[in-house]
Amino acid sequence: MPADSSNVIANLRELRALTGDADGAQRVAFTPTWLKAREWFESRLAGLPVERRLDAAGNCWTTLRGVSERSLVLGSHLDSVPNGGWLDGCLGVLAALEVLRGLSVKYEGRPPFTIRVVDWADEEGARFGRSLFGSSAFAGTHTIGADRVRTDRDGVTLEAALHQCDIDIEKIGDAAAEREQIAAYLELHIEQGPVLERLGLPLAAVLGTKGVERHSIVFKGQEAHSGSTPMADRRDALAAAARLALEIRTIAGRHPDAVCTMGSVKTFPGIVTAVVGRCEVTLDQRDLDAKVLATLLREAQEASQRFAAEERCSVEWSKIWSIEPIPFHPQLIELCEEAIRETVSTVHRLPSGPLHDAAEVSRAGIPTVMMFVQSLNGISHNKIEDTSAEHLALAVTAFDRLATKTLQWMESQ
Amino acid sequence: MPADSSNVIANLRELRALTGDADGAQRVAFTPTWLKAREWFESRLAGLPVERRLDAAGNCWTTLRGVSERSLVLGSHLDSVPNGGWLDGCLGVLAALEVLRGLSVKYEGRPPFTIRVVDWADEEGARFGRSLFGSSAFAGTHTIGADRVRTDRDGVTLEAALHQCDIDIEKIGDAAAEREQIAAYLELHIEQGPVLERLGLPLAAVLGTKGVERHSIVFKGQEAHSGSTPMADRRDALAAAARLALEIRTIAGRHPDAVCTMGSVKTFPGIVTAVVGRCEVTLDQRDLDAKVLATLLREAQEASQRFAAEERCSVEWSKIWSIEPIPFHPQLIELCEEAIRETVSTVHRLPSGPLHDAAEVSRAGIPTVMMFVQSLNGISHNKIEDTSAEHLALAVTAFDRLATKTLQWMESQ
Repeated sequence: MPADSSNVIANLRELRALTGDADGAQRVAFTPTWLKAREWFESRLAGLPVERRLDAAGNCWTTLRGVSERSLVLGSHLDSVPNGGWLDGCLGVLAALEVLRGLSVKYEGRPPFTIRVVDWADEEGARFGRSLFGSSAFAGTHTIGADRVRTDRDGVTLEAALHQCDIDIEKIGDAAAEREQIAAYLELHIEQGPVLERLGLPLAAVLGTKGVERHSIVFKGQEAHSGSTPMADRRDALAAAARLALEIRTIAGRHPDAVCTMGSVKTFPGIVTAVVGRCEVTLDQRDLDAKVLATLLREAQEASQRFAAEERCSVEWSKIWSIEPIPFHPQLIELCEEAIRETVSTVHRLPSGPLHDAAEVSRAGIPTVMMFVQSLNGISHNKIEDTSAEHLALAVTAFDRLATKTLQWMESQ
Repeated sequence: MPADSSNVIANLRELRALTGDADGAQRVAFTPTWLKAREWFESRLAGLPVERRLDAAGNCWTTLRGVSERSLVLGSHLDSVPNGGWLDGCLGVLAALEVLRGLSVKYEGRPPFTIRVVDWADEEGARFGRSLFGSSAFAGTHTIGADRVRTDRDGVTLEAALHQCDIDIEKIGDAAAEREQIAAYLELHIEQGPVLERLGLPLAAVLGTKGVERHSIVFKGQEAHSGSTPMADRRDALAAAARLALEIRTIAGRHPDAVCTMGSVKTFPGIVTAVVGRCEVTLDQRDLDAKVLATLLREAQEASQRFAAEERCSVEWSKIWSIEPIPFHPQLIELCEEAIRETVSTVHRLPSGPLHDAAEVSRAGIPTVMMFVQSLNGISHNKIEDTSAEHLALAVTAFDRLATKTLQWMESQ
């Protein structure tokens, strides 16, 4: 008995009714609604021959013991952003549970390998601004030294919020113990972008998560009176910034999957009667290829210096954050493509712009791959986030196939 | 005995010591420091055969009666912005007083025409945001219906502040009575821009004040995830705005004196991880020629629509404020040029980007001209505002010559 997508959709709807409101999903990690979602998830395990427990970082593991202790892990996250969508994260957890259920039936409760479903704690980082909390603790890449002092908007510390959920902040690194015996990790997720919809395809194999270079850039010129300062006498910081805003599109355009985004522009003094003396902008650059990412950064820096010089301004860069590209496992990517091709005949490969728990798992050296299902209108983190029921069903079927193929691959390892 | 520039400079320094502090001039209109400046000005009239009185809008008139009641008016404003410079406005008032003193001596207290010095009330509008208060009341162009409800940052209404200075807000229009018998108006002012310094010239005849078109422009695209949205799928409102920020320089560049300024850019949601969905900018456009000004506006509107369409965004314009160009009197401009040429041999003509009281006087149909003296570094409204002592002396001499020439011209009328 293979995984039944109608169970997954019924569960998604039940979870939405239980933990959402008119503004969308409200399963923010470390809040009562999130705990309620996890309690409900536990109720879904009734009748299954599984064990459930939390690790030291609050990740929730559901284990179906197999003949071998070597395990296949399937998962994602139940937590959401405030006013979130009904699919982001929980689709992956509930599809994983359905695949586990199917394998349990198929192998009469004793599969050749151990099957585990993981619900990572606080993927979104919506409350404390630190995403991938649980999976980075698992991977040993967490930065709790820096994150300990984080507070939510009410001044509650991350430490206190964890304590309320019986998580000791000093011990979250112990979640690394869960890495033992894991042979592979698979995650199904909505795309959260417009690519598959534009291509008219339901599913894609994900090549990895793009590396990110995130910088703040300040152009300084000379504030001047808009009426008395001729055009030729100006040192307009906005002009230099505007040229960069356009040039980053050319820079990104030289590579098929690269993206560059100027998301924030601030002008000073920022009044209608003054030439802009100082302009502060942000730049976010992403690519799956580390060399391409380095090129994007270098070309943007060079362009900013050229524009600053031509506009008689200065420019200064400061790093906000960066992460290297994290490619997924080549053989698992192939299995993912096979599973998709057998389900819907046409397959697409694409890198993920957003980060995911799977990136942390892959960083920990565990063979990993993700499967994306089409998002409608490319919209996520919003109550109108959606995917057609037909595509959800295809996704569950393909993900189930991927799990079976991965178990076969584990046998050959 | 012609006007003596050393008296003017001594007076400017005395006024600075009395009404300035370490941060600059503090003669904000309708405040105790402004009243103190006016009291001090009255003390400068001792021994002169003049009458002094306030009109219904708080403009201060000092009158030397002549054989004819037809009068030549010289003036500017004693009020300053907070932390202002030592020359803006008061140079024109104190130079006017010195010219009046010289003419009084020359004509033994009885010149052929009446000579008046005016100190306009609240040119800057620094406290209530309504500039040219007194001169617009005089000209009959004030908008007191709209301005009555204005308050300063402490919540004091314009009406209450006027009342404290014995000005009845209902009667300010009566200042129009002062227009009777005025044959010409002359104003000396610092340039407040970099043009004369760049040309190496001390003085200029001012052609008029530029008209202004001031608009708010909103581009709307689609907010999108910076990681998951390919470049080709974006509707980036910032891109459309950036193209306009650059295009306005081309549009202004087709006309010698036109200026276009994007002074404020606001991005929404304005975060590093999102493509800009909405971008709000301001545009300030100025030229002395009404046809050119209309062309600047039309071309910017057309460009914004073209960029919006190409970026798959929408664009909406809303007017903040506008005023037509106000050209000065052709014959008085010629006299101003003559006076400058006879003083420093080289003369320059230029339009004023900033507005001045002279613009309101000209709007009232009174033959008007202004003379500019070089500003150092083009900086004004700041404690470092300055003009060399040599240029101040040349300015007083040339302005005195202009007054004499204007009296001769009045005889011919």
